[in-house]
Amino acid sequence: MPAPALVALAERLQRLCVARGLTVAAAESCTGGLLAETITAVPGSSAYFRGAVVAYADAVKVRLLDVPQAMLDAHGAVSAQVALAMATGGRARLDASLAVSVTGIAGPEGGSEAKPVGLVYVGVADAAGVDVRRFQFEGDRAAIRDAAASEALTWLIAAAEGEG
Amino acid sequence: MPAPALVALAERLQRLCVARGLTVAAAESCTGGLLAETITAVPGSSAYFRGAVVAYADAVKVRLLDVPQAMLDAHGAVSAQVALAMATGGRARLDASLAVSVTGIAGPEGGSEAKPVGLVYVGVADAAGVDVRRFQFEGDRAAIRDAAASEALTWLIAAAEGEG
Repeated sequence: MPAPALVALAERLQRLCVARGLTVAAAESCTGGLLAETITAVPGSSAYFRGAVVAYADAVKVRLLDVPQAMLDAHGAVSAQVALAMATGGRARLDASLAVSVTGIAGPEGGSEAKPVGLVYVGVADAAGVDVRRFQFEGDRAAIRDAAASEALTWLIAAAEGEG
Repeated sequence: MPAPALVALAERLQRLCVARGLTVAAAESCTGGLLAETITAVPGSSAYFRGAVVAYADAVKVRLLDVPQAMLDAHGAVSAQVALAMATGGRARLDASLAVSVTGIAGPEGGSEAKPVGLVYVGVADAAGVDVRRFQFEGDRAAIRDAAASEALTWLIAAAEGEG
């Protein structure tokens, strides 16, 4: 089971989305399925959760989320641009009211001066458009993934509160 | 973090696949991302893990894993047929050497006499073909999901040992 604090966020998201008739999808890279697992840890989540694409390889971001290869080449997978494209693509491909994306560097390898370990972009897409936020988390791989999932769920809750 | 016993299986799978140049993909329904999260909890997993489709809604099974709608109508999402199709579709769509699928009833709702809570089908596809196994797990939602992920990882390890 994911951390209780994460599951509590997923329970709150579920209550809101079911009450408002909203559906949710996820496009995950560095969280690697943690977000979907947290959402589906709550019984009854099939009432609003459509599913997720865990796009670990860049080719999967292109093939299943419609992220342009040229964008990956120009900005890298961990970028605001790719987070926006993943959220937009995830919402369209999984046919959801709201979609969240997470792309970042969970470490311990893969960091650089420009893109250090803990850098994470979260995107949210709804019918009105798409937005992205940049985070710099501290801690080990598990802590960074938990923090990213927490921010993604918190933002989904706020987005669901603004809908309907 | 997933249970240590699950992460240990993922570490073993990673060592094997990296050594043999194999890639892995997952097509998850009832495990809801737990399998992908377990695999990606291990640092360096991007060297062999392509990603996953968490196909919670049936429409996602059709759209992203090429499961025929007629098969879902005839046999239901929790069936040997759909597990086979999810593994085959996941392997093709995510372009992996090995793909695993999991579809089942994690409960507490959704069970029936013919398909009780704890019924889980696991499929594995490789270049030679695809196979499926049927399990009946005991316990609560979390225990059933953990057991399904454990069987999926164990089978992937055996399949990787048989390759290359």
